[in-house]
Amino acid sequence: MVAVPSLFSLRHLLVLSLALNVSLILRTLYHETGEGNKWWFCFKKKMMADAESCFTTSPTASLHNSTRENIIDLDHGDPTMYERFWRQMGDKTTITIPGWQSMSYLSEGSNICWFLEAEFATEVVRLHNVVGNAVTEGRHIVVGTGSSQLILAALYALSSPDAAEPISVVSAAPYYSSYPSMTDYQKSGLYQWAGDAENFDKEGPYIELVTSPNNPDGYRRKSMVNRRQGLLIHDLAYYWPQYTPISSPSDHDLTLFTASKSTGHAGMRIGWALVKDKEVAKKMTKFIELNTIGVSKDSQLRAAKVLKAVSESCKEEKQENGGESFFKFSYKVMAQRWKQLREVVDGGDMFSLPQFSPAFCSFFGKETEPQPAFVWLKCEGDVEDCETFLRGYKIITRSGTQFGASPKYVRISMLDTDETFIQFIERLSAIQERE
Amino acid sequence: MVAVPSLFSLRHLLVLSLALNVSLILRTLYHETGEGNKWWFCFKKKMMADAESCFTTSPTASLHNSTRENIIDLDHGDPTMYERFWRQMGDKTTITIPGWQSMSYLSEGSNICWFLEAEFATEVVRLHNVVGNAVTEGRHIVVGTGSSQLILAALYALSSPDAAEPISVVSAAPYYSSYPSMTDYQKSGLYQWAGDAENFDKEGPYIELVTSPNNPDGYRRKSMVNRRQGLLIHDLAYYWPQYTPISSPSDHDLTLFTASKSTGHAGMRIGWALVKDKEVAKKMTKFIELNTIGVSKDSQLRAAKVLKAVSESCKEEKQENGGESFFKFSYKVMAQRWKQLREVVDGGDMFSLPQFSPAFCSFFGKETEPQPAFVWLKCEGDVEDCETFLRGYKIITRSGTQFGASPKYVRISMLDTDETFIQFIERLSAIQERE
Repeated sequence: MVAVPSLFSLRHLLVLSLALNVSLILRTLYHETGEGNKWWFCFKKKMMADAESCFTTSPTASLHNSTRENIIDLDHGDPTMYERFWRQMGDKTTITIPGWQSMSYLSEGSNICWFLEAEFATEVVRLHNVVGNAVTEGRHIVVGTGSSQLILAALYALSSPDAAEPISVVSAAPYYSSYPSMTDYQKSGLYQWAGDAENFDKEGPYIELVTSPNNPDGYRRKSMVNRRQGLLIHDLAYYWPQYTPISSPSDHDLTLFTASKSTGHAGMRIGWALVKDKEVAKKMTKFIELNTIGVSKDSQLRAAKVLKAVSESCKEEKQENGGESFFKFSYKVMAQRWKQLREVVDGGDMFSLPQFSPAFCSFFGKETEPQPAFVWLKCEGDVEDCETFLRGYKIITRSGTQFGASPKYVRISMLDTDETFIQFIERLSAIQERE
Repeated sequence: MVAVPSLFSLRHLLVLSLALNVSLILRTLYHETGEGNKWWFCFKKKMMADAESCFTTSPTASLHNSTRENIIDLDHGDPTMYERFWRQMGDKTTITIPGWQSMSYLSEGSNICWFLEAEFATEVVRLHNVVGNAVTEGRHIVVGTGSSQLILAALYALSSPDAAEPISVVSAAPYYSSYPSMTDYQKSGLYQWAGDAENFDKEGPYIELVTSPNNPDGYRRKSMVNRRQGLLIHDLAYYWPQYTPISSPSDHDLTLFTASKSTGHAGMRIGWALVKDKEVAKKMTKFIELNTIGVSKDSQLRAAKVLKAVSESCKEEKQENGGESFFKFSYKVMAQRWKQLREVVDGGDMFSLPQFSPAFCSFFGKETEPQPAFVWLKCEGDVEDCETFLRGYKIITRSGTQFGASPKYVRISMLDTDETFIQFIERLSAIQERE
């Protein structure tokens, strides 16, 4: 028993010394180049833009390079904030898949969506019932490789191959920045991006994407084009209690949800559609068949386990000594982040934030305030290009122009890790003090 | 210790008796309706065709309904044959994923394909080196949700958004039945299906899909349009030692592989592309980003484990007391199936099969014969519509017309379970005797 601590200490000493060396080497490199995080930043940038743009530096940026601060990339809504909760859950959501399982293309069951895993479908229905955010009765579930694939499947299903011209696809600005490119990248003869729904005045049928709460600005949304012949796709990725008060179960023709924003499992690439019309569900299924011949079964099974854990955490919370539910945890983190953010922004006059009204949330049984997954930040005063301005302080955001809005706005993710969020708040506070 | 065997026997008796009851009930139902497998068949049919067609019965079919044989569906290449091998492997390929893992959209590493899991990329390279079926040096790996998504990504990457008209997409008949619909379902202005490569004589650039060994007929293929300005996509889904002699490592600009046909894991939806040109790899990555924002990480991790096991099984086989490698197992199953099939077909003059020449296989270090994943069966004599003819005997196949060929041909999967394959051989033998 004596030898163990001695060996332990020796090994520890070695590890510590090695860590110190690595740290010193990295620090030297970082201070020499001022580019310590540039590679990671560029790698992340590749996600939505061309890699080339990583290597261009804005004039403002060069002014501040001397500060040697690291880059805070909040361009994407990568939901790494949730990792902490799932680590706390330990083995509860660990999934084990034997090598011989789920080999077939097909899934058991009699669903229109022939690749839908029954277990996943069950947990989708259960979770919506627990949360009360969507009517599932009389709906066909179509599973997709994330909700992106389901948006495309819905465009395909709602358009007609025999139409004289592509059907117009609109969404009210500021709209999700990927809608235009997702709609047009294939140069499809079936559908075509037609811009801001509020300015849309073309006669005939159209598809309107209604995102509620909205990405980027977090406001609740309804259809903007008040006309007949409109086909609606409701993208409710953020209609969960941590982001917005749940007023009533959504009850639309075609509604989309995704694991990425509900539980934070973006890497699973799992989304689901609740579809009223059988023919639309069939056509969406056909799209996914031609696109990817189904959806990963491994991820469907994992998603089933995760959704089940979320539902159970809500049930257990109500019991004596029950832990905190997933939504309570997430709500608290979001509430704290928004509080900190509002404090910093209100401490100066450089920036402004959207203002939301509290409303009764049927899930929490009390009044709650919207606390969106993104900040739709406005640069006040002389700053005309907020994205470039913040980039000068090494805060990477997405410009309002990408959302069909003014460059005075930027979208900033609120779902990154605690560490990154704290750095962001500190950096924002420092900007207010300096400028 | 005495109580255990007694309890054991009682339980066994109960299970046996229950099984007997269920079996008898099912048998009664089946004999009453003659439709025992119809639901399953219709469900499977939904995969590639409209469900409605399930409920139409061909005139020939009604002639034989009295035989009360079950339906043998070999329309799709569902690779359930491989399940036996993976069961034998036990826990070796079992994967465990904790709830907090792989939450981000992004993968670590510096790949052009920003959602590519490093572990998966490593195992792809390793397996190709072990098998010797593809050059991986100087190639970028792009992972896809099955190789279907990669075909679409390649069409997108090889076409130009500024071209005056869509680029022609061709493949030599008989070609994979999904190529035309995959190319045209979006009515893309970028690319357009232009049919059989052998009849293609339009000037200007074109994309040729080269499938080798070919689906449906199993022959080795080279580009058929012998012209410049041709952009080639090599679909080598079946270039594995169980199906065809490995002559040399494939060395093309853009090559596609898939787990579905190499290891039999169709439900994972994992394919990969080996891409020489950096810009093409970038554009393919962009396509997948806009289509599905990446590829399931869970399935990539599982695929990595499965490919690793395949590589290791090849290494272990060479050691003393080493088990049978994955390819040896699969080769033997395929050899036996083709032998049985040839015996039945040669026993009459109703059908004929493609004839293949043996060649040296560098992987097995000996001469082997092609034994494709599909049979390209021809009905000889008066039978003009082979698909309808076999459907009359409740054998579901895919008609030659779907492959741009004569209705005298059908494609039949050779990758189904042992049970289904034996039934198929018996049914085929019975047809030869009856007709």
